[in-house]
This record gives sequence, C-alpha cells and structure tokens, in this order.
Amino acid sequence: MKIAILGGTGHEGPGLALRWAQAGHEVIIGSRQEEKARRTAARLNERLGRPLIVGMHNEDAARAGEVAVLTVPYAAQNALLTALRPALQGKLLIVTTVALRPPKVARVYIPPEGSAAEQAQTVLGETVRVVAAFQNVGAHALEDLSQPVACDVLVCGKRKADKAIAIQLAESLGTRGIDAGPLVNSKAVEAMTSVLIGINIRYHVPAAGLRITGI
Amino acid sequence: MKIAILGGTGHEGPGLALRWAQAGHEVIIGSRQEEKARRTAARLNERLGRPLIVGMHNEDAARAGEVAVLTVPYAAQNALLTALRPALQGKLLIVTTVALRPPKVARVYIPPEGSAAEQAQTVLGETVRVVAAFQNVGAHALEDLSQPVACDVLVCGKRKADKAIAIQLAESLGTRGIDAGPLVNSKAVEAMTSVLIGINIRYHVPAAGLRITGI
Repeated sequence: MKIAILGGTGHEGPGLALRWAQAGHEVIIGSRQEEKARRTAARLNERLGRPLIVGMHNEDAARAGEVAVLTVPYAAQNALLTALRPALQGKLLIVTTVALRPPKVARVYIPPEGSAAEQAQTVLGETVRVVAAFQNVGAHALEDLSQPVACDVLVCGKRKADKAIAIQLAESLGTRGIDAGPLVNSKAVEAMTSVLIGINIRYHVPAAGLRITGI
Repeated sequence: MKIAILGGTGHEGPGLALRWAQAGHEVIIGSRQEEKARRTAARLNERLGRPLIVGMHNEDAARAGEVAVLTVPYAAQNALLTALRPALQGKLLIVTTVALRPPKVARVYIPPEGSAAEQAQTVLGETVRVVAAFQNVGAHALEDLSQPVACDVLVCGKRKADKAIAIQLAESLGTRGIDAGPLVNSKAVEAMTSVLIGINIRYHVPAAGLRITGI
C-alpha cells in the first residue's frame, strides 16, 4: 500500500515509516517543508539500508498516497487539515492524534469536539473517510526495531472497509488491530494515551501499552 | 478487610463478593431491601460452601464496612449516594459505576460531570475518599470461579494510600491493580467499558478485558 505520513518528521511518524517500509509498503514522509521531509526520509533509509522511503511536501504526499496517516500534534491538526482538505477528498485518513493539554499530558482531557479524530472529521467533512487508530502506540516502541511492538491497535470509524485497512496496517507493524466501534469511541482510546503516559512516569517504564484480553 | 458492596445484589456485586470472600475478606452485600441482600448472601454462601458473606441494608453495610464498593447502575447512583452521604463520611468509597446511556451502551458517552466517579465525588463532597476502579471487570468473568480474571484493574483517585487499598483488593481478585492517575482519568477507564462491550458483541466473546503491557 502507498502510505502518506502527514507531519511525518515529528515524534510518531519515523517509527511508523520504518516499520511499514520494512513490511513492504511504499511510504511517503510528508512535511510542511519538502527539504525536511527528504532529510528525514534519507535518515530512515540509512537505518533500513535501502532507499524505501521518500520525502514530499504534505500536500503532494496527501495526493500521492492511497492512505494518509496524520501524525501532527493536536495543536497543529486543524490548520494542517484545513489546508489539505482538497488533497484529501475521497481518501482514507487515519488520525493518530491525541488531544493533550500540555503541560499536564498525563491528565485526561476531553476536548469540546470529543476527540481529535472527531474534530478532524468535522474540519474535513464527510467526503474524507476518517478513521482513528495508533494513538496508543508509543514512538519509543515503534523506533526500536529490535523489539516487537507489544500492544494492540484499537481502530474506530464509520465504515467497516476503512477500519479493515487500518487493521491491516496495524498488522504490518506487528501489532493486532481491533475494531473498537464508531468514531465517537475514539474518545476512550485517545484518553487512554494520557493514562499510559502517566503509567510510564509512575512505573518508570518507556512504553506502557494497551492490550485487549479475552478475544 | 471488611468490604461493604453497596447495591451488591445486582450485576457486578455477586462476583466481587464471591472472589473477595474466597480471598479471606469479610464481605457485606448491601441492598435497598435487607431481605434481598440476605437472600443474595445466602445464595453466594451456598456456592462457597461456607457462610462467609452477610446481607444488610445499604446504610448499615456502609456504616459497617471499612471500605465501601459501589456497584449500582449509573442511573441509580446519585439517589443512593445522596441517601448514604452521612454513613460514608470519612470512608473510602470505590466507585465501579460506568456512565452508560442505554440502549447504545457500546457507544462511548462522557457525562457532563466527566465520569460517574467524578459525579460521585461531587455528590458526596471531599470528606468521602472516592476512588474509581473495577469498571472494566466483567460480571461474567468474576462469577466464573473456575477461571482467573484475565485483565488489569486501573485505579484512579486523589490519594496514593487510598489507591493502594483498591490495588490490594484488585490483587485479591487475582487481577493486577495499576495506579492510573487522578480521579479525572476515570473518564478514560469508564469509557473503555463501552469499547469493551462493543468488542464483546463484534468478536462474539463473553468478557473482553484490558491489560497494560510494558510494565
């Protein structure tokens, strides 16, 4: 699959890019600055030992990808999505954003829109297929390629077919993807990220994760 | 420990009572009707083969217990807590309630108060020590004594010492208790219950649960 990681030079994008490229996907790192996207892609290709990842401006990446994955911080989400709205028409956008309110990021915050993913759907309108996923997968765990990512990926969205794609991409990371219901349920999944950040601090661990038992 | 399970004749109470009694705690089942509490206690004692559990009116149970555990449905919580406020003064109350909005209980709902546990704290005031826990542990899993309960218990609250008691009670069930931060974080934990109910339906399983990885 051709995956455009929008805002992919940040915290979460590089680890996703590395693992998806390793799994055989075509990965595009998008950035507001094309040059920065190319530098990140080059750095990641060096780690992979093969030129599998390319860098582009966010808008070109959004147009080129079959699937777009949003990995910008919550504060930057609205402006970026407003700008990319035309490029994303009809596409599947996977939102990994979590509504955090710095500096108290270990304290659950429910934004007025309910969740970052619901906010994205509102900004983009119904002609962009928004799915929420990967909010709980820590950057630290993704970038350490020597270890499998020890958590499940909870996928929320409207259409089963779109969620199936996100679940397949979760499996490409070596995690298990689980259909967690409608997009409104992303409130719970996003909020768990703050809980996990707090657990990391309280239990002195780098990457606490979530797993579903009993299925 | 002497544990009063308030509203203990319902869905969640009996399984908690059975497992805590088995672990050596003194368990009181509370109900609005003393007779009903006694009948439930007798039925559970029969399963245990020993008269370990007693039944009382909710108010007597709240006064007798060292720790009170609230297991009524969300719709009944406010009225019961208003009535029990004098009996609960200074005590530790563990709230297991989840704000569900029937009939769509698999759809995350964040109530105006944030969570059922935050609502309980508001109704009771700061002189009752409210901790949120056990919201994700299914009644089905609790009552099947032939199997261990395969999930973690996330504990939210203000004071470390109170959370330590809830964590200890989680361990008495055979689960792992985890400090999940301040009471506001109970929003995330409660909301995950709707997600788990949906997973039970979608994946045709009786008792999906949550576990924290990486600690």
